[in-house]
Amino acid sequence: MNKVIDFYFEFYSPYAYLASHRIDDIAAKHGCEVNWRPFMLGATFSITGHGPLTETPLMGDYSLLDIQRNARLHNVPFQMPTEFPKVSLNCARAFYALVDNQPEQAKALAKGIYHEIFALGNDGTQPETIARLAKQNGIDGETLLESIQTPEIKQRLKDETGNAIKRGVFGAPFFFVDQQPFWGNDRLEQLDRWLETGGW
Amino acid sequence: MNKVIDFYFEFYSPYAYLASHRIDDIAAKHGCEVNWRPFMLGATFSITGHGPLTETPLMGDYSLLDIQRNARLHNVPFQMPTEFPKVSLNCARAFYALVDNQPEQAKALAKGIYHEIFALGNDGTQPETIARLAKQNGIDGETLLESIQTPEIKQRLKDETGNAIKRGVFGAPFFFVDQQPFWGNDRLEQLDRWLETGGW
Repeated sequence: MNKVIDFYFEFYSPYAYLASHRIDDIAAKHGCEVNWRPFMLGATFSITGHGPLTETPLMGDYSLLDIQRNARLHNVPFQMPTEFPKVSLNCARAFYALVDNQPEQAKALAKGIYHEIFALGNDGTQPETIARLAKQNGIDGETLLESIQTPEIKQRLKDETGNAIKRGVFGAPFFFVDQQPFWGNDRLEQLDRWLETGGW
Repeated sequence: MNKVIDFYFEFYSPYAYLASHRIDDIAAKHGCEVNWRPFMLGATFSITGHGPLTETPLMGDYSLLDIQRNARLHNVPFQMPTEFPKVSLNCARAFYALVDNQPEQAKALAKGIYHEIFALGNDGTQPETIARLAKQNGIDGETLLESIQTPEIKQRLKDETGNAIKRGVFGAPFFFVDQQPFWGNDRLEQLDRWLETGGW
C-alpha cells in the first residue's frame, strides 16, 4: 500500500495555496498518495492566540512580500485577492460534500477554487462561483450547493477541523507523513528529504 | 566594499541559535560580511500579539520537535535549556558593550553564550557565566560586568531593539540583504540563493 501524506489546508491561506501546487509532485516522486484535508484555520486562532498573518502588525507587510517571493521562486501564478481573508466555509463544505464518493473531483474543485482565489485574485467563497467551478469539473453544481447547506456536511467540516486540531494542526499548510508533522510551505523540502531518506 | 548581511537575533531563540551556526559560512561563500545584531524579541510581542513559541498552545510541542529535527539536519549540537525562555538583557548588553571597539570579541562572546545555552542547555544569563565566557575569549570579564550596568549600554540595547522594530523585525532570526528581509532559519537557503543569483 502506498504511503499517505496528509495535507491540511485552509482555502484562504496563501502559503497553503503555494503548497497545493507542489505537494502532489513531491508525493508522486516517492510513490505516495496525498490526502487533501481542508479545515477552518480560524478555529485554531482562539487556541494559539494568533490571527490572520496579513492582519498581524509587522508580520503582515513581511508576509505579503515573502508570499510573492516564494510564488516567483516556485513559478506559481499568484495574485493577492482584493478581499482577504474571507471565511472559507462554503469552499471546505463543498470539498467534503464530494470527497467520499468523488475524491478526484473534490481535489479538482479544490484546485479550481484555489486558482480562482490566488491566481485570479477573485472571491472564491460565493455559491455561484463554487457552482461554476464545479460544473467545469463535471460536478453537478446545484446538487453541490444543496449539499453544503445540510447539517451532515456542516457537522463533517466541524469534525474534520476538530480532528485536525486534535492531531496538533495549528497552521496551514500542515502535513503528516510517518506520524511526523511538518508545518508550512517552507517545510516541503524537508518533507521531500524525509521521504527520500526515511528520516533523520 | 563587501556586501553586508544584517543578522538580528535573540539570545533565547533556538531558531536564531541554529542560524548563528550557518550564517557566517553562507556569507563567506559570497564574500559578504555579517553584521550581528542581538535584540530583545520580547519587545515585539506587544506589537504582534504573539508570545514565546514554546509557550504557545499547539505550536509549542511542534516547535520543540521541529527545532530538534532542524538541529539534526544541519548537524548543530542542540539541547533545550532546562529554564526556557529567560530574559536575555545581560547577554545582549554585554554584546553591545563590546561591539564598537572589539567587534570580533563581541561575536565570539555571542557564540560562547549561544553554546552555553543551546549546546549545553545551561542558563546563559547569569553575570558570572557571562564573565567566564568573556575571559575564555580574552575579554576582561569584570569590566564587562560593570559596563552592562551603565545607563549608556542599557539605552544602547533599547535603541538597537527599537531600530530593529522600525525596520520591520518581528521575529528571530531576521536578516536583511539588499534591503530584502528574510525571516527565519528556514529562509537561509533562499538568502543563499538571493546572494548567488542577485534575486528573483
